[in-house]
Amino acid sequence: MKGSAAALAYARAHRGQTLRTVEELVRIPSISADPRCAVDVRRCAARLAELLRRIGLDRVQVIDTGRHPLVYGEWRRLPGRPTVLVYGHYDVQPADPLGAWRFPPFEPSRSGDDLYGRGASDNKGQLCAHLASIEAWLRGAGRLPVNLRCLLDGEEEIGSPSLAGFLRRRQGRLASDVVIVSDTRMLGPGRPAVTVGLRGLLNLELEVRGPRSDLHAGTFGGAVHNPLQALSELLAGLHDRDGRVAVPGFYDRVRHWSERDRRAAAEPGPSDAAVLRQAGVASGWGERGWTLHERTTLRPALTLNGISGGYQGPGSKSVIPAAASAKLGVRLVPDQRPVEVERLLRRHLARATPATVQATLRAGSRVPPVLFDTAHPVMEAASAACWRGFGARPAFLRSGGTIPAAGMLRRALGAPVVLLGLALPDDRAHAPNERLHLPNLWQGTDTLIWFLLEAAHLRLPASA
Amino acid sequence: MKGSAAALAYARAHRGQTLRTVEELVRIPSISADPRCAVDVRRCAARLAELLRRIGLDRVQVIDTGRHPLVYGEWRRLPGRPTVLVYGHYDVQPADPLGAWRFPPFEPSRSGDDLYGRGASDNKGQLCAHLASIEAWLRGAGRLPVNLRCLLDGEEEIGSPSLAGFLRRRQGRLASDVVIVSDTRMLGPGRPAVTVGLRGLLNLELEVRGPRSDLHAGTFGGAVHNPLQALSELLAGLHDRDGRVAVPGFYDRVRHWSERDRRAAAEPGPSDAAVLRQAGVASGWGERGWTLHERTTLRPALTLNGISGGYQGPGSKSVIPAAASAKLGVRLVPDQRPVEVERLLRRHLARATPATVQATLRAGSRVPPVLFDTAHPVMEAASAACWRGFGARPAFLRSGGTIPAAGMLRRALGAPVVLLGLALPDDRAHAPNERLHLPNLWQGTDTLIWFLLEAAHLRLPASA
Repeated sequence: MKGSAAALAYARAHRGQTLRTVEELVRIPSISADPRCAVDVRRCAARLAELLRRIGLDRVQVIDTGRHPLVYGEWRRLPGRPTVLVYGHYDVQPADPLGAWRFPPFEPSRSGDDLYGRGASDNKGQLCAHLASIEAWLRGAGRLPVNLRCLLDGEEEIGSPSLAGFLRRRQGRLASDVVIVSDTRMLGPGRPAVTVGLRGLLNLELEVRGPRSDLHAGTFGGAVHNPLQALSELLAGLHDRDGRVAVPGFYDRVRHWSERDRRAAAEPGPSDAAVLRQAGVASGWGERGWTLHERTTLRPALTLNGISGGYQGPGSKSVIPAAASAKLGVRLVPDQRPVEVERLLRRHLARATPATVQATLRAGSRVPPVLFDTAHPVMEAASAACWRGFGARPAFLRSGGTIPAAGMLRRALGAPVVLLGLALPDDRAHAPNERLHLPNLWQGTDTLIWFLLEAAHLRLPASA
Repeated sequence: MKGSAAALAYARAHRGQTLRTVEELVRIPSISADPRCAVDVRRCAARLAELLRRIGLDRVQVIDTGRHPLVYGEWRRLPGRPTVLVYGHYDVQPADPLGAWRFPPFEPSRSGDDLYGRGASDNKGQLCAHLASIEAWLRGAGRLPVNLRCLLDGEEEIGSPSLAGFLRRRQGRLASDVVIVSDTRMLGPGRPAVTVGLRGLLNLELEVRGPRSDLHAGTFGGAVHNPLQALSELLAGLHDRDGRVAVPGFYDRVRHWSERDRRAAAEPGPSDAAVLRQAGVASGWGERGWTLHERTTLRPALTLNGISGGYQGPGSKSVIPAAASAKLGVRLVPDQRPVEVERLLRRHLARATPATVQATLRAGSRVPPVLFDTAHPVMEAASAACWRGFGARPAFLRSGGTIPAAGMLRRALGAPVVLLGLALPDDRAHAPNERLHLPNLWQGTDTLIWFLLEAAHLRLPASA
């Protein structure tokens, strides 16, 4: 039996075990944003290190960072062959609002072909497809067709703050010819996609402070600028009537696309009707003159991710709160720069804030946008793997999302990054009732088995 | 020893006991807005009933309502004498934000002349001045100089929803000649005040719904109207640039005041500088052409009391929430009508809500504004009592706050209502670090002892 056939047979014979691994990982609430879950994040890292050892990787280690650990393992027993670096993340988004979940978020639950749970799709399920493909080669065929490094991040959902430093320190010792990541979407079941563009992300928190302490709304209402109201006014002022970001200079560096570029980018993307269906809304919103898919990929966006202030309990409370705050996420496109956009926002808010309140803007992650070269030979390798695994060539897609690691890995390793996603558009990543479509796990594993074989035959500049 | 001298002597000799009673009541977290505190509210009612019995009132009962009980007691052993109805409330505002408290909110703590704790001033402390004055007469002088009813509300902070029904059912059996309530402010230590005007209150909750479930902000940001943003836009649109409420028709029924009326109303009120100091802000805000005191008393106001939606935990979350909501309180002045203003707001919001989201407005309490007659003989009785208790005549003040019971009691009983407040402007009612200035408790008790005596000699239309 050829190596690939043995690997595929092994993977198919061990699907039950792969599913149990996904379920086991989903049970761990490894929410990187929540300090109370730090122990769970670490527990998840330790468990993954065990799994990497079990499937046969060498030099497996849990690497401490300032916050949540990285997990690393490698298999480099074929000198002269290309090295593939598999990147994934084992941390998850917070699960709230808890009340909106059909099943408990950390109790993986099957319903038909879907597995529900926080992280089932993003990214534990997709990660397990990689682990299953590596195990299939090592256990089924006795060896991998390429050298391999596996790097698992515990901070992806908070912007991978420790990864850049780690890559800088280890740069020489992580040399790889290609990076593969499965943390993006397919077009639909059986319709694979390789994501070639990601928006950048600038996370900000805007706090508005007014009176020294909370005030009685009856006694002072009408005479004191309410921080909740001032915040609403500032937030409303971030967009104009046409859905464009109203921050002066915001669009200055946004790349101009020719009609041909736009057609090429739009063709594989979902139609307006499909986007509306996926979003569960009746009508779209945003910049005129662009399709909904373009608005989320070619165009930048400023979204409010949370507002809090004043009384939020049941009933009412007559209070003017001392402060109110909002969480903002700005999705950036080429050639916008996070620090520059942050500066524009600071200037705009400083001008817009009335003298009656004080506004403070705190920045979180700052991730530049990325765009990968579809002409690189590794894209053909990914395409061939999809053809064999899914029975279809992948679409080359742009995504509205952000994977900070993608840009970091490309910059640090100088290697092409293949975003071969196994999530469906309606997997509800980041939302209640997140789920993994299990056929994607199985076809994805097969595809990744093929990708490792295709990568072995790549004629790469670095290994030439 | 005359009755009043005996009562005063008794009150002074029992200050320690009165203070312990306030402390005991503050320890009970009787937050009427919070369903989890329903048991505590009931416990507080039971304890007050015990106290009323102990000080010698008759027919003491805890009266069930749809939600939180009323406590009633009476002493009606002087046929032909006027009847005074004492109204107070034993429920309190929520204590959040808890982190802003210097002492735990339900652990009464002394600091100098102040007693800190939720409800210390509003209204448990002020209530205890009444109980102390009644006890002083009954125990010190052997009898009260008037007939008396005592009615304690457990739902004042949520708009007294059960009181109106209770008054309707008991109307005939609650006949009183004068109502006295201590739940308003003085001008400062040793500077008593009788509040003769209260703003009305319309509580509303505005919910904006967008997508069916939470969405990934990267995937959909820019193509879907974010409920947080739509809410911010709707809220920002409720005021114009000049701080006026931008709801068409909102000011139509606001009473016009002559320059003379304005001077009379403004004279006792705090200066702009005093309001700013009390509020802890550097500059005022609101309608031009009116002093800060006027903006909170003669003029209506629309305040935001809370906004919530999206992710509010630590760090960031890339989410477009399915819904966001805000709590609003509209303070009304003569001759605005709550139901009419609600209708204007509904119409305005229906017009202002874009087709990309759905907005729902739910109404809570609806309380009309009230204005009492300063020429009524009971005001002179209150003035004389203040003169004896505080050594100063009271100012006749308008307040920006709302006491739903004041209007209900006047309408139901047809009796004048005296709002003889014992709170200081910086007592921080409804806010963290609420406190009671203890000299007000002692001088207030004396004043109320005198008021009961003055009321005995009132020539009232009802008892004439």
